[in-house]
Amino acid sequence: MTSRADWAEKHLRYTFRDPALLERALTHRSASRDNNERLEYLGDSYLSFVTARRLYDSRPLADEGDLSRARAALVRQATLASVGQRLQLDAQVILGPGELRSGGAQRVAILADAVEALIGAVLLDGGAAAAESLIDLLFAEEIANLPDAAALKDPKTRLQEWLQGRGYKLPSYSVQSVSGRDHEQTFVVNCTVEEKDAHTNGQGSSRRHAEQEAAAAMLSVLIGEP
Amino acid sequence: MTSRADWAEKHLRYTFRDPALLERALTHRSASRDNNERLEYLGDSYLSFVTARRLYDSRPLADEGDLSRARAALVRQATLASVGQRLQLDAQVILGPGELRSGGAQRVAILADAVEALIGAVLLDGGAAAAESLIDLLFAEEIANLPDAAALKDPKTRLQEWLQGRGYKLPSYSVQSVSGRDHEQTFVVNCTVEEKDAHTNGQGSSRRHAEQEAAAAMLSVLIGEP
Repeated sequence: MTSRADWAEKHLRYTFRDPALLERALTHRSASRDNNERLEYLGDSYLSFVTARRLYDSRPLADEGDLSRARAALVRQATLASVGQRLQLDAQVILGPGELRSGGAQRVAILADAVEALIGAVLLDGGAAAAESLIDLLFAEEIANLPDAAALKDPKTRLQEWLQGRGYKLPSYSVQSVSGRDHEQTFVVNCTVEEKDAHTNGQGSSRRHAEQEAAAAMLSVLIGEP
Repeated sequence: MTSRADWAEKHLRYTFRDPALLERALTHRSASRDNNERLEYLGDSYLSFVTARRLYDSRPLADEGDLSRARAALVRQATLASVGQRLQLDAQVILGPGELRSGGAQRVAILADAVEALIGAVLLDGGAAAAESLIDLLFAEEIANLPDAAALKDPKTRLQEWLQGRGYKLPSYSVQSVSGRDHEQTFVVNCTVEEKDAHTNGQGSSRRHAEQEAAAAMLSVLIGEP
């Protein structure tokens, strides 16, 4: 048995009938034309469905907006990459010479894509039930630790709902300054809640990001949210 | 048997064990808090996976970009709504008084959402295999009639690839005029392929749309594409 198959048995608790599928799932496009991109596409869609189903079953009172946000948090690149790290995928992915040299930059994307490709490969090799078991194995921790619906909303939405719930007017946002060159601009935005005479600033690479930062600061002023 | 159950047997070729699920799948949020939004969320994710799988199997040479575009064409609102029309869903959806009065405006969205909710309901009622059969029944025509990968790319991409494939330089786009008030602007954009001394115009409600129109016109000039 190859070391790759050993790794799959240990970390995925799955034995591939077709070892070529396992190898393809681990092959980044920098290494070969026979790479994991199609498997990633397939795995991504199955992961998306299975997490939707788990959330649907486990959160009977959540509306579809809450369910969508919860799923987005589960299947986002950073979460997938951290699953990949737990699997010690770093030592298994097959990269071309360019990627090997460049190191870190693409790491998160490469790990995330490989996790999805592995799900696709198990789906083809062992069927839907096997792939579902793999998803439950890999994401059990993430699903259990998912924040509740409110915390998954962005700061502007949370601030708006908090204010509306108490009969206050909506906050106002205004751009204070824009600095830096064309594609490296920094925005500073002010958030004001008049009735509370509260003012906060936020900074970011886009107006939207700066507004979210200012809203987060305002939540922390108003209700001590970290 | 209710007329709704008759309808499902005839058009979905499926008999619900739990008729309440069928009713919920047809209930728009304007009619009841017990509506089809959660089922739509679930059905959407399953439809997305099953179409991904069908495309993966039927287009072995397509890369993941081609597969993504093909899927997007299949599961977009207009396609779902036309499936709903074929099912005569209009007569089955349960709407609140406001929606009944307002008529057409929301029609497409309501039909599309109900199609997804029906898939979710069959998934819960009869399992994955039953929902898969339903998707194959409803979308067989759409999958068979899907244009090939090239045609699913937008005109700017097709034009760029056509020019690059022949060693020509990229086209240039320039805004010729912007007219109309703030939220009803009309852009006119010129597309030029210097080496061919070819110039076309496109018009649209955004710069991007106008550029796509100009690129489509250029394709038609250069290769007679309709």
